[in-house]
Amino acid sequence: MQKEILDRCQQLVSTLLPFSANISTGATLTLPQIAGLIDHTALKADTSSAQIDLLCQEARTHQFASVCVNSIFVAQAAEALAGSDVAVCTVVGFPLGASLTVAKVAEAEAAIAHGASEIDMVLPIGLLKSGANQAVYEDIAAVVIASHAHNALVKVIIETCLLTDAEKIIACVLSQAAGADFVKTSTGFNATGATVHDVALMRQVVGPDIGVKAAGGVRSYTDALQIVAAGASRIGASAGVTIVTGGSTGATGY
Amino acid sequence: MQKEILDRCQQLVSTLLPFSANISTGATLTLPQIAGLIDHTALKADTSSAQIDLLCQEARTHQFASVCVNSIFVAQAAEALAGSDVAVCTVVGFPLGASLTVAKVAEAEAAIAHGASEIDMVLPIGLLKSGANQAVYEDIAAVVIASHAHNALVKVIIETCLLTDAEKIIACVLSQAAGADFVKTSTGFNATGATVHDVALMRQVVGPDIGVKAAGGVRSYTDALQIVAAGASRIGASAGVTIVTGGSTGATGY
Repeated sequence: MQKEILDRCQQLVSTLLPFSANISTGATLTLPQIAGLIDHTALKADTSSAQIDLLCQEARTHQFASVCVNSIFVAQAAEALAGSDVAVCTVVGFPLGASLTVAKVAEAEAAIAHGASEIDMVLPIGLLKSGANQAVYEDIAAVVIASHAHNALVKVIIETCLLTDAEKIIACVLSQAAGADFVKTSTGFNATGATVHDVALMRQVVGPDIGVKAAGGVRSYTDALQIVAAGASRIGASAGVTIVTGGSTGATGY
Repeated sequence: MQKEILDRCQQLVSTLLPFSANISTGATLTLPQIAGLIDHTALKADTSSAQIDLLCQEARTHQFASVCVNSIFVAQAAEALAGSDVAVCTVVGFPLGASLTVAKVAEAEAAIAHGASEIDMVLPIGLLKSGANQAVYEDIAAVVIASHAHNALVKVIIETCLLTDAEKIIACVLSQAAGADFVKTSTGFNATGATVHDVALMRQVVGPDIGVKAAGGVRSYTDALQIVAAGASRIGASAGVTIVTGGSTGATGY
């Protein structure tokens, strides 16, 4: 990894912290505009084939950006969504991020072969927390190279709830330097999901050129407007239908 | 999959259910005997390299059966345990079981190349719950074939807390038929871990020829004796040191 990447980490940590998000007003977006930002998500261990079919049907109806499913269901989702504009997104190294890079690459390549065009990978959180930034960078870069070779996008899940603000900055810098198309807040399988604070910090770090995906805890139209105002350009939610039908309560949030 | 496997599922479901575990007394095992049954486990997303070193040191001291770590830490653990009798165990498709078979196989093979000799894989829970027994069987068999080719054991995590008793029976029959060396109760990442009921049911189904690993919730010497009496031949625990030093409280249980 080039010295300039590490220098950029250090520089941002010292200039941005302590970070305080300053979001004055919510975004103004119509329901269809919000729908176009949503990755309609079902990632539980016991999600069934029937639930995947329903998810895809809802995604077609509401014109969500994608469905986000575990890789065993990618082929089924791709078939269900054929002819629509809804992408198939899947997860890699999920939700712990602690599998070997070669396994993540194999998972991404197989999922893309089955019809996925968006790969949400989890970075190796334990290595990041051990200061092994080079290894984190290489892990992300390997998945990016494999995915971009097949024109698939990569979103890097940094799992904000397990990180300090300094670690969040480093995670975003490494992800962007490794070629990620998005940084993403959360798996939804840990203590908390996306917060305005974290999305604003991540957007501040990566600038306007790549995406920020807020995942976990976005359960209503109001939540969605607020998180977009903070800088999110994609929303991962299991409550997509509730969000775009204007409801204020919803399912648990990933 | 042969018809006889499906027939066996059906036969056991109708003869064993409703199942009631009948465990009269605890097992009698010394602390070193219990230690030899323990997979000393650290699988959290943010487990650091330093924590892996400590885990390995504890496993050497107490002569645990293995350390159970995520695959990014297999090489480190193998190096730390060189020259000892402690095995390196890792997890595959963990904790959701919802990654593609080729990804699970790639993960197992890479981990074995790094020094793992025991592979704890999660079966595809969503497919089991969808009745896709053939696909579940093939997923397990592929990991077993890849692992046995390198003399590594395979334990199949069935995630009991998400299954009905009938599904637990089917999961055990499919695992055993596919060549698994152990069936294992839980990932530790879901609602509950091992129970006496589930371990006794699993032992009843698989008989004496393969292992049953109880994971999650075993936190004391008393817990360990009880779960062994129910039929467990291996215990997955993060509280191994507490268990073998005779303590009755401990860390959270996986």
